[in-house]
Amino acid sequence: MNLDFKFNSDGLIPAIIQQTQNGKPTAGRVIMMAWMNRLALEKTIETGFMHYWSRSRQKLWLKGESSGHTQRVLRWYADCDVDALLFEVDQEGAACHTGHASCFYQSFGRDGSPEPITDSLIFDPEQVYKK
Amino acid sequence: MNLDFKFNSDGLIPAIIQQTQNGKPTAGRVIMMAWMNRLALEKTIETGFMHYWSRSRQKLWLKGESSGHTQRVLRWYADCDVDALLFEVDQEGAACHTGHASCFYQSFGRDGSPEPITDSLIFDPEQVYKK
Repeated sequence: MNLDFKFNSDGLIPAIIQQTQNGKPTAGRVIMMAWMNRLALEKTIETGFMHYWSRSRQKLWLKGESSGHTQRVLRWYADCDVDALLFEVDQEGAACHTGHASCFYQSFGRDGSPEPITDSLIFDPEQVYKK
Repeated sequence: MNLDFKFNSDGLIPAIIQQTQNGKPTAGRVIMMAWMNRLALEKTIETGFMHYWSRSRQKLWLKGESSGHTQRVLRWYADCDVDALLFEVDQEGAACHTGHASCFYQSFGRDGSPEPITDSLIFDPEQVYKK
């Protein structure tokens, strides 16, 4: 398996995550962006579930390991410069730790002004992440 | 206008570009990822057309300045950590310098094996970028 992508000087590559077309209200939406190192990519391919490298915690991270909100991979893509990856996934629950379906829930108009947040919460983060 | 996003140590923030839902064959597709600095974001908001910071050429870059393949912004989003931006655009021509509609034209199966490229070319790069 040739994973000869351009990882940056920290050994990371950006991963864009898009909800697959499956009839869910979030179908086709970009739901998050995170970073992968080579190990995260290998684990993702091996298991079929998204793994990332947490820059803040400096550890491998299975998305959904504490929340149960896993991301099953359907297909993925590299870009023309092989320095960015795009994953088409089926998201369990919601992608965002805030409870929103997508991390990109704050929109802005073309003039740069923030718009009211209309995305409802899929889950209550207090309940999901309680110790 | 508050553009208080988390730019990285190089003063850059990743920008994900998605074709808007408009009936084109590429509707809803993620077509590229590039980097913006504060100036690129300001110029994008001011003009309504995507501007980036070219890391290789170290200069501000109006997408389409040589090819004519501009990207008109319809709406944009910041993520929950305000360290990534998502732009919904209407792409003139094709996003990729190779002539493909999307820079993400090389797909992989879940097992990591590359799939045949089925995206046809929208333009001939030899013609578009000739001097």
